[in-house]
Amino acid sequence: MHTDNSKIKDVFKGLSFSKEEIKIIESVLHKVKYKKASQLLRANDPGDIQYYVFDGCLRLYYIDTNGKEHTVQFAVQDWWICDATAFFYDAKAIMNIEAISDATVYKLSKKDRDFLYLKIPKIESFFRKKLENVFASFQKRTIVNLSQNAAERYKFFVATYPNIEQHIKNYHIASFLGITTESLSRIRKDLTHK
Amino acid sequence: MHTDNSKIKDVFKGLSFSKEEIKIIESVLHKVKYKKASQLLRANDPGDIQYYVFDGCLRLYYIDTNGKEHTVQFAVQDWWICDATAFFYDAKAIMNIEAISDATVYKLSKKDRDFLYLKIPKIESFFRKKLENVFASFQKRTIVNLSQNAAERYKFFVATYPNIEQHIKNYHIASFLGITTESLSRIRKDLTHK
Repeated sequence: MHTDNSKIKDVFKGLSFSKEEIKIIESVLHKVKYKKASQLLRANDPGDIQYYVFDGCLRLYYIDTNGKEHTVQFAVQDWWICDATAFFYDAKAIMNIEAISDATVYKLSKKDRDFLYLKIPKIESFFRKKLENVFASFQKRTIVNLSQNAAERYKFFVATYPNIEQHIKNYHIASFLGITTESLSRIRKDLTHK
Repeated sequence: MHTDNSKIKDVFKGLSFSKEEIKIIESVLHKVKYKKASQLLRANDPGDIQYYVFDGCLRLYYIDTNGKEHTVQFAVQDWWICDATAFFYDAKAIMNIEAISDATVYKLSKKDRDFLYLKIPKIESFFRKKLENVFASFQKRTIVNLSQNAAERYKFFVATYPNIEQHIKNYHIASFLGITTESLSRIRKDLTHK
């Protein structure tokens, strides 16, 4: 087996591992390339995979009872993404994940993640810190959504996901912000003219 | 020193500890009683304390540049609450925490939490799972906020915080939902008449 340590360095930045540990990690972390518009997860499927984005962009979204899509989260380089309820509670997915550009990801199943926690406890600390980041960013997003107008929410989006706009269609951004594409165009025009 | 093991059982439900471990935990977990309307955290203070609610209800809120309050989260019995950015990144608080009823809480500082992780690693796993719960519930709240009308958001609130309404003023609920108190009254009336 070809030992490609580089990917582990990318995924678990800041940690160092023994050769033994690297073997364990490589046995459970699977590199997959997806073409733009590939569907990685569909509602009602088992949601027991976490995706790490090596390059490209993924989108997590919900389809409501009227068939309308709502973008919950994007994941760009070095982000993890999953349907949290499905992944953490071993439930069926209620959300969907698609590649909105060609993307290279690493897949880690819930079972393999638990195996890693057991074998290499510092990986549990690593994910605990990732979850703290997520918690802090969700609290901030809640503040922004409650207290800011659409233009301010757009500026927060751009700050949260720098360089993401090249990958993303306008209606995805509008859906993430909970506004129409017409409002988004107006906001961009106003910001350009300032 | 009086050994009150019961509180540890409450806070770390599902875990069992040796006598040694209980001593360590008791040395860092501080029980405090607050009167209704007490201010536990103010924006710009250090935000290095996590609060566990033993009884009563706390509210985490943000004051915008116009002086308007926005409720980000409530914490009822058995919930933890903190300004996540301040706590996890050792930054100054941007949010405020107040007791909206008489409340008994346990305080745990960031420094003491890190000490616990070092001495009793299963406590780190415990908090990792709590963070997973928070992540899942924030994703759900995002879906609800993006896809549901105010009445549905109100029903989600009631399901998330059962029995909380006895503690909470109407304008707090309205602020959490991002609606006016008049809209809230209308929604309640409509639901009662269904």
